[in-house]
Amino acid sequence: MAIHQNPNNKLVLLSADEQRRRLDRVRQLMSDSNIDAILISDNANTYYITGRVFAGYVYIPIQGEVVYFIKRPVELSGDNIVYIRKPENITETIGLNAPATIGLEMDVTSYSAIQRLSKIFPGSEAVNSSSVMNRARAVKTEVEVDMIRRSGIAHERVYSRIPHLFREGMSDIELQVEIERVARLEGCLGQFRISGDTMELFMGNLLVGPNADNPSPYDFAMGGAGINPSLPVGANGEEIKPGETIMVDMNGDFTGYMTDMTRTFALGDIESLALKAHQCSIDIHDTLKTMARPGVEAKSLYETAYKMAKDAGLERFFMGHRQHAGFIGHGVGIEINELPVIAPRSKDILQKGNVIAIEPKFVIPNVGAVGIENTYHVTDDGLECLTNSPEQIIYFDV
Amino acid sequence: MAIHQNPNNKLVLLSADEQRRRLDRVRQLMSDSNIDAILISDNANTYYITGRVFAGYVYIPIQGEVVYFIKRPVELSGDNIVYIRKPENITETIGLNAPATIGLEMDVTSYSAIQRLSKIFPGSEAVNSSSVMNRARAVKTEVEVDMIRRSGIAHERVYSRIPHLFREGMSDIELQVEIERVARLEGCLGQFRISGDTMELFMGNLLVGPNADNPSPYDFAMGGAGINPSLPVGANGEEIKPGETIMVDMNGDFTGYMTDMTRTFALGDIESLALKAHQCSIDIHDTLKTMARPGVEAKSLYETAYKMAKDAGLERFFMGHRQHAGFIGHGVGIEINELPVIAPRSKDILQKGNVIAIEPKFVIPNVGAVGIENTYHVTDDGLECLTNSPEQIIYFDV
Repeated sequence: MAIHQNPNNKLVLLSADEQRRRLDRVRQLMSDSNIDAILISDNANTYYITGRVFAGYVYIPIQGEVVYFIKRPVELSGDNIVYIRKPENITETIGLNAPATIGLEMDVTSYSAIQRLSKIFPGSEAVNSSSVMNRARAVKTEVEVDMIRRSGIAHERVYSRIPHLFREGMSDIELQVEIERVARLEGCLGQFRISGDTMELFMGNLLVGPNADNPSPYDFAMGGAGINPSLPVGANGEEIKPGETIMVDMNGDFTGYMTDMTRTFALGDIESLALKAHQCSIDIHDTLKTMARPGVEAKSLYETAYKMAKDAGLERFFMGHRQHAGFIGHGVGIEINELPVIAPRSKDILQKGNVIAIEPKFVIPNVGAVGIENTYHVTDDGLECLTNSPEQIIYFDV
Repeated sequence: MAIHQNPNNKLVLLSADEQRRRLDRVRQLMSDSNIDAILISDNANTYYITGRVFAGYVYIPIQGEVVYFIKRPVELSGDNIVYIRKPENITETIGLNAPATIGLEMDVTSYSAIQRLSKIFPGSEAVNSSSVMNRARAVKTEVEVDMIRRSGIAHERVYSRIPHLFREGMSDIELQVEIERVARLEGCLGQFRISGDTMELFMGNLLVGPNADNPSPYDFAMGGAGINPSLPVGANGEEIKPGETIMVDMNGDFTGYMTDMTRTFALGDIESLALKAHQCSIDIHDTLKTMARPGVEAKSLYETAYKMAKDAGLERFFMGHRQHAGFIGHGVGIEINELPVIAPRSKDILQKGNVIAIEPKFVIPNVGAVGIENTYHVTDDGLECLTNSPEQIIYFDV
């Protein structure tokens, strides 16, 4: 079941070709932004460039060799590795030629850490290279798409078990825990990587009945009150009752790359308004699948989805009811919230190799949340769906 | 089982007295550091000051009323609430008297976010207030200690089930998943709050046999290879075999406040060296319990522990074998790594109201990790143990 760690201690776990493809992309974007070198320490970016997470820094000059400065773990081997104790050792150790501009991950690294890093390049102008890395990672290589595809297959396997996990009288959180267990036994890493400081979520979101309408502080598509005000999102401990929907939007991180998938289940018959809204979500997917192509504006997907919801008279339930989310989709990969952003004011243009989650959802008062989410690969021929579970509402047996 | 969310929408969930105690402490430390006002947005700090997490900012002037600027969720009620769309609305909306110095959370907030916040206080000097909040939170109120105490009781209940969860032929990750499930059903929130950008861990660490000696990139006491190089820590999917130890150091977040507890289990007889090292860990705890008092230097606890390990001839296994951790304990509360730090170069002095985890551990090659960890409350009478599970090695039945 488990994917075993590489038995040797090679630092770079990507093939030379694969790493070159990623570095070429990063360097092209560095060149476009006039950045001479970048220094990476964010786990997601380190994983992207090397295929593993370590504590330390990756130094990428626009020309010349990549250098790896490692704090932990011990005993890694490979070319251009320098073990350091602190960031000041970076320049002490090898006397880098000072780049005119040094790109640092200013959107994800703390102010104090960036100040410290800036000082070790006194002759360089420190600039923000977060956007370079985010734009590089938004266009996946074939190897990356394949890792997402493999996550999707495991994700489907977990979701196919959900109807068998339900027992009458269960609370939402009890059902969620059984799904978590099955996911973990299928190899889900659990870790739910989110870019940004203030979004927290444990293993995803399971929303039942009226709890779906409880607003949460996080910028996720849906809310839920949670079971504790220190983590006010998702399942709230209430029993699952007939006439309610169960929306499952849980963690698909099986390979270090995630899929994002939502399916809706129900206990007994539910109101026709909810059925209509669920079908509208499926219709939106079908329409966007015919529209989405490299070169299409991401915001046009949002506009089409919004118009379809409005034309169906479902506008006030679209992407929430008491509180509305301002997007219907997002890139996904190493983190759950990558580029492009599929939102009204997005300036992103779809590119071949993007992997995007599309999640037109509705919250119907007293019934719960309905709709589906799939993860798609943007190809020249349109969207390849990487999360192929059945899309209709699935009814739990009682 | 679940702790239900406060049914009303009151923003501040702390009692007025409890909030005043925390604010008094924060303001005393602001005064010592000549900071006129602080602006909080980190989830852990927001939870500390209000008893809930929301997206937005808490403005704390050294005198006058606290103001809450909220982005999400909608519909919160209480005094001094201002709904905003973006941080610039903070000063636009109410025209705060510009403080001479404004404290921002520079150790935990991104460089880009701090730059943006600094600009909305153009007449103020922006200074780093992370230390103020960290030092305030290091000394727990009675209400906080009681939440940690309650987490400890639930944590003990989970650990008492561990011997019953083991089945012959299980892998480490399979056992971990069953413990995760029991913990979640007991109300564990799952979320493992860690301060700092680059430490990641899912639901804690379970280390079996030689995997305990695999170094990880994170600054935790113990390592493990993990099942994927994107999260290289902990269980690695190997079967649990006779003669090996199983060290369980799993998530104790049942109340928004955590306990940190480690216990060691074994399958069949294990080498006498491992038994000796485990007893040394217990002896270190017993000794530190008699030493630790308000006013004692944190580093002296480390020195005593290290000397005891050395005198027992166990120095090279202490806090790791291939890779060593540089501390034996740390504060714990809303996050797993709070003040004080119990390490050789720590300048921290134990204070009444500190809650500290002490974890003298050993890695014995071919056997695994041994030792225990407890969470203690520092009182005038010494350490109150908040994690009271049996401390001897517990043998799994086969």
